[in-house]
Amino acid sequence: MATATGVQRAHDHIKTLLVHTPILTSSTIDGLVGCKVLFKSEHLQKTGSFKARGAVHNMKIVTERGTKGVITHSSGNHGQAVAWAARAAGVGCTVVVPEGAPAAKLAAIEGYGARIVRCENTPASRASTCSSLAEAEGLDEIHPCYSIDTIEGQGSLGLELKEQLSSVPPIFIAVGGGGLASGIALALPDTPLYLVEPEEKKLTQQIDGSEEVQQLSLPTIADGIRTRVVGPENKRILAESKNIHVITVSEAEIRAAMVLIWTRLKQHVEPTAAVPLAGLIKLSSQSPSLPFQEAIVILCGGNVDVSFTL
Amino acid sequence: MATATGVQRAHDHIKTLLVHTPILTSSTIDGLVGCKVLFKSEHLQKTGSFKARGAVHNMKIVTERGTKGVITHSSGNHGQAVAWAARAAGVGCTVVVPEGAPAAKLAAIEGYGARIVRCENTPASRASTCSSLAEAEGLDEIHPCYSIDTIEGQGSLGLELKEQLSSVPPIFIAVGGGGLASGIALALPDTPLYLVEPEEKKLTQQIDGSEEVQQLSLPTIADGIRTRVVGPENKRILAESKNIHVITVSEAEIRAAMVLIWTRLKQHVEPTAAVPLAGLIKLSSQSPSLPFQEAIVILCGGNVDVSFTL
Ligand SMILES: Cc1ncc(COP(=O)(O)O)c(C=O)c1O
Ligand SMILES: Cc1ncc(COP(=O)(O)O)c(C=O)c1O
Repeated sequence: MATATGVQRAHDHIKTLLVHTPILTSSTIDGLVGCKVLFKSEHLQKTGSFKARGAVHNMKIVTERGTKGVITHSSGNHGQAVAWAARAAGVGCTVVVPEGAPAAKLAAIEGYGARIVRCENTPASRASTCSSLAEAEGLDEIHPCYSIDTIEGQGSLGLELKEQLSSVPPIFIAVGGGGLASGIALALPDTPLYLVEPEEKKLTQQIDGSEEVQQLSLPTIADGIRTRVVGPENKRILAESKNIHVITVSEAEIRAAMVLIWTRLKQHVEPTAAVPLAGLIKLSSQSPSLPFQEAIVILCGGNVDVSFTL
Repeated sequence: MATATGVQRAHDHIKTLLVHTPILTSSTIDGLVGCKVLFKSEHLQKTGSFKARGAVHNMKIVTERGTKGVITHSSGNHGQAVAWAARAAGVGCTVVVPEGAPAAKLAAIEGYGARIVRCENTPASRASTCSSLAEAEGLDEIHPCYSIDTIEGQGSLGLELKEQLSSVPPIFIAVGGGGLASGIALALPDTPLYLVEPEEKKLTQQIDGSEEVQQLSLPTIADGIRTRVVGPENKRILAESKNIHVITVSEAEIRAAMVLIWTRLKQHVEPTAAVPLAGLIKLSSQSPSLPFQEAIVILCGGNVDVSFTL
């Protein structure tokens, strides 16, 4: 079971190895949204996303136990993060990548010296390619979002916010498999969390258990959160958390938020990183006034091909 | 005559009103270039470029003297900066804008409440439209790069670097009319300055006086530095400076630098801001080792349409 103590232990190690990412602001965006927006800049994290947190923590766990090498499957950010962390830890690394993954992400994974193995672009093919190779070669699988170690590693972001701010306001988080959201929920049990999802994800129903959804790749430009299913451990943590809210955003709302981040904050983030701001803007447009004066928006990643256009 | 004392006076006022812009780094870019690169982030300055410095200083000068309003011509950044500074100072503002200027820049100028007057996209039409309106309405013209007040205002960037760093390494600067370069030359007379120009500008010949060039709009993607001619006062300052070097970069070199800044530094800058890095990379590729361990690269602006592609 992932725990707050586990997150603290992960954080104590992670913070010695990774960037303490800055918090950026834009008075223009504050004016538009109607509250002070603190952009936690994980796109400036090592490897360009918060995924470096979980990756570094997993490397610590497997090297302490002894390992023949690690393997993972990822459309990109997790793959980069694991490849980088494995090299830093002197551990061999294999990344299973679906056809169609962005070229910039693949180039980065290879740049970190990992072996790339391609598979079909379906969740089933990714998982099976990865687990059969792991078994054949005796490799440790590093899960992008569902495992206890990954959840506890991502949670270090919450503890870092606590160290940076005298009090932590509500946080807006993009949710894929739920590793980041559940890690932060463990780290900051008293902080309101706004989980922002693309359409058709049914996050509320997944968390309250009213519907068992099928795994599929959601048709969103936010390629970091195309995974639909929130894992069992992630669901348990989110279901037990107080202060959880879900906001669903459309593709147009994601694009509009991305324009603001590129042109006003001048940060070159990937589409997934625009999802939390899209959620905040939606909330702000639906209510006459927001229930808080300040909010944290997590810019979760910055890995986007230069050829990407809005 | 623009002087170091004038720059100091300008800086003392400017620093109370503008952002002290951060210095960003990327270990990947350091590795590629072969030295530590300090990115002075003026794209995070008010209005998205260093032009806010000269604009704020000019407003101080005209309001002390008494003014009926200001007017300027600009393809964008200077226009935005003057519009913003004028509104902040409670002064009316007119901006003459050539046909074809990027939509994002025009929208920003109007957003700051300035009146926009269009003209043909030739240097001659811009200058004459501006000066005849200035005369007819009794407005003060704010020159984007050639005037003493503008030069002294831009120079505050040099003094800010001196306050941020224990010692200031060589600086790479994009040159249009030469306001920024000459201001920094006054502020930091002992610092090596690498002036980076697009092709066909003939900056060396302009500074050493060996050739009188025609004004024209240079055919470069770096739209902030299409102005070819360096002004007389700017030329005088640069000619008298020791430690001035000129590097010419191609369009492909500018694009390659821009890809690095977008994908590695994750900063959404405009093409002109990639010119200094292009110059540093060129220098590094031409010599077995660089004559310095550290360099400053000025990210001079961040105003680029979302539709812009590389
Ligand atoms: C940039 C980015 N943001 C958010 C997420 C979602 O994280 P999680 O799967 O932990 O919910 C991912 C996952 O890949 C990502 O790459
Ligand atoms: C972003 C940017 N960089 C550089 C310059 C060049 O400045 P200067 O004309 O002072 O040489 C400009 C001028 O508009 C600019 O907008």
